[in-house]
Amino acid sequence: MTAWEDRFSDRMGRVRASEIRELLKLLDQPDILSFAGGIPDPSLFPVEEMAAAYAEALATSGEQALQYSVTEGIEPLRVWIAERMARAGAPCEPANILITAGSQQALDLLGKLFLSPGDKVLVERPTYMGALGAFNAYEPAYAALDLSGRDAEGARFAYVVPDFANPTGRTMTRAERETLLDLAEAHGFAIIEDGAYRDLRFAGEDEPSIIGLDAARSGGIEAGRTIFCGTFSKTVSPALRLGWVCAPRAVIEKLTLLKQGADLHASTINQMAAWKVVSEGHEQRLGMLRARYREHSEAMQTALSRHMPLGVRWTTPQGGMFVWLELPQGMDGARLLEAALAEERVAFVPGAPFHATDAAANTIRLSYSLPSPDDIDEGVRRLARVIDSRMAHARVG
Amino acid sequence: MTAWEDRFSDRMGRVRASEIRELLKLLDQPDILSFAGGIPDPSLFPVEEMAAAYAEALATSGEQALQYSVTEGIEPLRVWIAERMARAGAPCEPANILITAGSQQALDLLGKLFLSPGDKVLVERPTYMGALGAFNAYEPAYAALDLSGRDAEGARFAYVVPDFANPTGRTMTRAERETLLDLAEAHGFAIIEDGAYRDLRFAGEDEPSIIGLDAARSGGIEAGRTIFCGTFSKTVSPALRLGWVCAPRAVIEKLTLLKQGADLHASTINQMAAWKVVSEGHEQRLGMLRARYREHSEAMQTALSRHMPLGVRWTTPQGGMFVWLELPQGMDGARLLEAALAEERVAFVPGAPFHATDAAANTIRLSYSLPSPDDIDEGVRRLARVIDSRMAHARVG
Repeated sequence: MTAWEDRFSDRMGRVRASEIRELLKLLDQPDILSFAGGIPDPSLFPVEEMAAAYAEALATSGEQALQYSVTEGIEPLRVWIAERMARAGAPCEPANILITAGSQQALDLLGKLFLSPGDKVLVERPTYMGALGAFNAYEPAYAALDLSGRDAEGARFAYVVPDFANPTGRTMTRAERETLLDLAEAHGFAIIEDGAYRDLRFAGEDEPSIIGLDAARSGGIEAGRTIFCGTFSKTVSPALRLGWVCAPRAVIEKLTLLKQGADLHASTINQMAAWKVVSEGHEQRLGMLRARYREHSEAMQTALSRHMPLGVRWTTPQGGMFVWLELPQGMDGARLLEAALAEERVAFVPGAPFHATDAAANTIRLSYSLPSPDDIDEGVRRLARVIDSRMAHARVG
Repeated sequence: MTAWEDRFSDRMGRVRASEIRELLKLLDQPDILSFAGGIPDPSLFPVEEMAAAYAEALATSGEQALQYSVTEGIEPLRVWIAERMARAGAPCEPANILITAGSQQALDLLGKLFLSPGDKVLVERPTYMGALGAFNAYEPAYAALDLSGRDAEGARFAYVVPDFANPTGRTMTRAERETLLDLAEAHGFAIIEDGAYRDLRFAGEDEPSIIGLDAARSGGIEAGRTIFCGTFSKTVSPALRLGWVCAPRAVIEKLTLLKQGADLHASTINQMAAWKVVSEGHEQRLGMLRARYREHSEAMQTALSRHMPLGVRWTTPQGGMFVWLELPQGMDGARLLEAALAEERVAFVPGAPFHATDAAANTIRLSYSLPSPDDIDEGVRRLARVIDSRMAHARVG
């Protein structure tokens, strides 16, 4: 057999292993204090509620729960999502909802739907690495989203995480959302709104969703240009692999065809169990999640203020799991990670891979979702020591 | 907003709703006797075993069961699959296994890995419609697989369902498998072996898997050219959306990257529950499935012999769920379906959409997995009546 590499498709030139993924595999070691994984705190998972939901689904409708189901997703879950989105300002019907395998699959299907090789995609700088991972397989040309309109002409879509973004923790203001809609209208591109963290606001006031603002100005989401991606990964459990797209029917219909070709449908039993769990006590659960992440975020802000040397700047999130650090110019996040692991047993994610264009290497992402407030303080203290020693080294050198 | 249709990617020209899918939505009506759906008999689902498995996974490792997990799939399930494949003649390691969202996702990821627009793919005539649905998004050029070697030059891969194929029920002989391997070697293409029904043999003797024959002649699966796709959809439950790819590591590594971009990983809790269920009593369960499908297949063969007019020919499967009918020349399967639904309330799938090239419209697929032996006799009797009346009409006309 000749080398497999010679047989792969053209797109595989764009699909590469991330060094980070390899690095993160090392972080299971128990003595490492990690701010790396952007994963939910498992102590908040509704383990008992899920156990009851699986038991009930199998006891009352076992044959249905274990059988094939329609590609669009089971009706009660789509009804629940549509009603909740409508209450939150995006008036829609179940026909506007497609259940996906997490929001990661939504991004993959949207890349497949919209992108031919070389098509322009606007992304924030930095942006969610997993979105780049999904889109790359469709060989787009990226440009940095600039609300002044620079480079926007000819774009297929803009991809944004407007609430407590991964990786920056930043939230778009209402004015920025309106400007983005103006820009999309002027240049004729669609907007993909990734609302993965939207339910996790723990400070400040809700901003309207872009899909809601769009519906208000367009006369409904059918006439709009915004495609919203939601997920149960951060609010119920990522292991279910359940998310959704809310979009005009013309988009949902095509995404449904693509999903049918990609994996037929999302797990029937997981959809039934998730529906039972969100139908009861979902808002209380969100309250608990918000309180926990607020506590961790405050511990992170306090620790950063206490320990970080002058010259390091960071964001102050109003929700979600992430804070973004800008290190002094010339400092490299990836090399800092090596030193931090070796010298202080502390981990985080370097910022460069979150950039589709013009990477700022002097950035890093910290997640505060997993470590305890005490560990957050200790981890930031260690991290500050590594940064400080490298700054001192730079001053001497 | 301008029309969405103008914004979609080039590939969407190849992604269309199947008329059949629309037709099949009508088949939920209770008075229709249906041979259409190729779905497992739900009365054979291990409902109690699955309930116990979910309960145990959540009781003993709830936080892990509900958390993100690695893209490759959970280790114990990959170990179980690798050992089982090795015992069945395909010596492999867990590193040769990737867990997918059913074998449908395996086909999608393989299309993504191998196909640039215009690349040649060899498929049987007819072939599994869902494979065409997966591959179409990557814009291949299909050619009919011909074991004489015609049209094989330059193909990226050949896709085959060698055991009790969907839709024909046919099984490739050992000699045919060897010839396919010779051809692949001579022309330098890969082989995708879809083993979806392989565990459901109820008559005759096992044929060796193509991946096993390849490993034997190549000196191991690492040196081979065959990629095997398996699934738990037909033997445990399709609702879990769990299948696997067994292939050389160079292929598994790339598929893993593509899966990471497509949906991160298969449902953690479903993998844990499936592993518990297959670890205990899987072979007994297969025995029960085989006995049930044997009984249904025999009822189908008896009914076809009893009721079908001269001029109709059919296959005799040794496993799986399907029998393939060739109607007299000039009779159209799709139009026959309309008549069968209207006049006799009996359903099946027309054969044309299973053809990537040169469709034979005078074919239909019957599945015997769901109806009882009595319903099989009655349904075939009705179907024969419709066929007979159209043959009579053709004779008069």
